[in-house]
Amino acid sequence: MKDSRPNFNSDDKDKSPADGSVKDGGYELKGRVWIEGPSGTFLGYGRAVLLERIREYGSISEAARSMGMSYRHAWELVDSMNREAKAPLVETATGGKGGGGARLTSDGEAAIESFWGLHARFKEFLKNEMENLII
Amino acid sequence: MKDSRPNFNSDDKDKSPADGSVKDGGYELKGRVWIEGPSGTFLGYGRAVLLERIREYGSISEAARSMGMSYRHAWELVDSMNREAKAPLVETATGGKGGGGARLTSDGEAAIESFWGLHARFKEFLKNEMENLII
Repeated sequence: MKDSRPNFNSDDKDKSPADGSVKDGGYELKGRVWIEGPSGTFLGYGRAVLLERIREYGSISEAARSMGMSYRHAWELVDSMNREAKAPLVETATGGKGGGGARLTSDGEAAIESFWGLHARFKEFLKNEMENLII
Repeated sequence: MKDSRPNFNSDDKDKSPADGSVKDGGYELKGRVWIEGPSGTFLGYGRAVLLERIREYGSISEAARSMGMSYRHAWELVDSMNREAKAPLVETATGGKGGGGARLTSDGEAAIESFWGLHARFKEFLKNEMENLII
């Protein structure tokens, strides 16, 4: 689903951008959705983009760089997702020629797919609401 | 609609609480929705609660106090809403015996009603999504 993949705004690293918005006159309806796990944030827009980039680059550091994010921050997000998930979303291999790589597990693939489905339906919700909103 | 009025968490003044969440096992689906006007935030959860409290107390300062919010912050929120709206949502009267009061305009009443309708449908959206979410 690359064509519909949202752009990540690297100027806005510390908070996820709004998940969707629809303009009507001067007004926009905006919103965000995210999933919290047993002890903190599990999955939201920025984390889903990070998982996609890890799939694309096979590396947490290259995924982080592509998003203008520090390796440390990306690593912490991956660690947080792996801890909150029922089974890890990302597997890492350390050492070896060329250093360690990272790849998504099948649970990671499923989490991305599930989140983008939710995200698409949420955008549709906002679109419908905007059409009926009286402001 | 007082019975369904959400509680405002006064420990969380600087950011609106999540508009809705549904627990399932250890996971919660959370989200927020808000409306932006031509030059900034127009209406969200905290602002809608503030408008309701102004209707209830007939005073910005008492409404602010009831939410654990400074008068200055409440006044700025009201000023922002009035500037972003097509017509003012809150009218204030200065001076006179007992100081100035504040009351909602018919546009203010309509804005509250419109936002809580959106909010209720968003909670329903989250509930339905939570039931179908595979995590």
